[in-house]
Amino acid sequence: MDLAIGIDIGGTKTKVGLVNKDGHCLEHTDFRTREYPDLDAYLDKTVSTIDELKSKFPEDINILGCGIGAPNASSKNGTIVNAANLVWKGTVPILDKLGERMSVPLKIMNDASAAAMGEMLFGNAKGMKDFIIITLGTGFGAGIVANGKLIDGYDGFAGELGHVDMTIGDGRVTGLNVKGGLEAYVSATGLKRTILFMMSQYMDESRFRDIAYNDLHGEEITQAAAEGDTIALKAFDFTADILGMALANFTAFTQPEAFFLMGGLVNSGKWIFEPLHKYFDDYLLDIYKGKVKLLRSGLPGKTTAICGAAALIWEDYNLES
Amino acid sequence: MDLAIGIDIGGTKTKVGLVNKDGHCLEHTDFRTREYPDLDAYLDKTVSTIDELKSKFPEDINILGCGIGAPNASSKNGTIVNAANLVWKGTVPILDKLGERMSVPLKIMNDASAAAMGEMLFGNAKGMKDFIIITLGTGFGAGIVANGKLIDGYDGFAGELGHVDMTIGDGRVTGLNVKGGLEAYVSATGLKRTILFMMSQYMDESRFRDIAYNDLHGEEITQAAAEGDTIALKAFDFTADILGMALANFTAFTQPEAFFLMGGLVNSGKWIFEPLHKYFDDYLLDIYKGKVKLLRSGLPGKTTAICGAAALIWEDYNLES
Repeated sequence: MDLAIGIDIGGTKTKVGLVNKDGHCLEHTDFRTREYPDLDAYLDKTVSTIDELKSKFPEDINILGCGIGAPNASSKNGTIVNAANLVWKGTVPILDKLGERMSVPLKIMNDASAAAMGEMLFGNAKGMKDFIIITLGTGFGAGIVANGKLIDGYDGFAGELGHVDMTIGDGRVTGLNVKGGLEAYVSATGLKRTILFMMSQYMDESRFRDIAYNDLHGEEITQAAAEGDTIALKAFDFTADILGMALANFTAFTQPEAFFLMGGLVNSGKWIFEPLHKYFDDYLLDIYKGKVKLLRSGLPGKTTAICGAAALIWEDYNLES
Repeated sequence: MDLAIGIDIGGTKTKVGLVNKDGHCLEHTDFRTREYPDLDAYLDKTVSTIDELKSKFPEDINILGCGIGAPNASSKNGTIVNAANLVWKGTVPILDKLGERMSVPLKIMNDASAAAMGEMLFGNAKGMKDFIIITLGTGFGAGIVANGKLIDGYDGFAGELGHVDMTIGDGRVTGLNVKGGLEAYVSATGLKRTILFMMSQYMDESRFRDIAYNDLHGEEITQAAAEGDTIALKAFDFTADILGMALANFTAFTQPEAFFLMGGLVNSGKWIFEPLHKYFDDYLLDIYKGKVKLLRSGLPGKTTAICGAAALIWEDYNLES
């Protein structure tokens, strides 16, 4: 059986899986990225994780290659550069280093671009020529497809929209020190920051007055909203407002047929989507109104990012045949 | 001799020309768009203008087609929709109407996208796969090329960046009533508005205190800057700051190799370009620094837009042969 390895390097977790030609992730696991500040130790751990997954197959398997999705990855140079949410700083020659440990074809891409490739090959974007993937995890990522092709940019850094300066309200700084950058507001981390901001702005009682920032998790904010916690509700509304404006702005750029939202923040479901639809429609220019869909990924939540990374390998095979 | 007609419909002027396969505009003229609020009268005038130009050629000419660049044009529907700076409102079925008067192939596109096509076929973007054209005339337009192809969007409205909400400072409204929209600041009109703003902010003496808004022209602002008028200098600095931030943001989208700036504001030369280079570099994320050029069009200033429009026709011919 032919399989592709998919690796998603996230600020919090690294996810590894083996994906077949239909986009099904047959085996997968994860480990904590931050536990491996040393790149060599991290890559050794990655390779042993892959070997472990391979050993779970009783039948013969043929590994076609290994695709990696990572923040601030340059597809053209095979590197990760100054990623705000990763422990390794500067320019990380990750493909070269991994190539010393594995002899299959290797590819790397911005995580959101990899997700776009996955959605196009295996998910809900099949047949679409113009769409944008937005990943709302530890950070904010974008993968842009126009004219049926992924936009890479001059040297592979297209889509780094998390650090776009929106000159928003209070001018929060991102992990890359961009004042008013989108990621500082619209991401799982941004939502947590907004909980603090709302408690600074209003005197509403809230369960969050008893929880420290570092103990705060997205699921809890969703649950609080469901229980009517007004700080949580205000935080979702504020986040949806900024995301709605951002997506309306992005629409003026490539006019996608749809945005696919994925990542931790999306798990908040209606608490984010309901206000988002309202704000997005408000901000959209008349010429675009009613033409742009806000969708969720068509791939299984837990392995979406792995399938996207593996799609970098599968795209070289004619999947129709 | 084979020729293509190029028409640029601007808020102020309509430019018409005949362009050969090398991108040379052999004959051209213009008339004032606003003098023809009736669309039929406007199209009659356009056709008679074309006939006039054709009659100037002593030899036999063969018209291959007619390309049109216009604000808010939908290439897919052949219409102009809600253009802020044009007199005709709503959805204007311009290709159908022109087709009743001419029997050659007709194409229409967003004016900045047409300019991008011209630059790619005939100008300084030959061989580039990723670049963005920015037109700074009555309005603000953008033509985006990625992976060597013009980005059209889902139904032909990609690149309407003039009405992107930048939530800038004082929240000026654009002609489409977008608060804080880019076009309200960065365009020939935006510069005039900034002259008023600077006189409202500062008490500096200035020649502009004796000139009414409607009598104010871009060339005069350039001349004033050259003479050390501090209101003019502040206005250029302010405009360059916002444009620099916008271009830095756009870079995060498709990571172009170059921006080509054209239109009235560009004629201000170093007064806009010098501060622009500084601000652009300040705002650019580290991963992009030193990789993105700010250039001028390689086509003759007066006929750039005409050549772009004609390029919509010439692109269907193999220009290498």
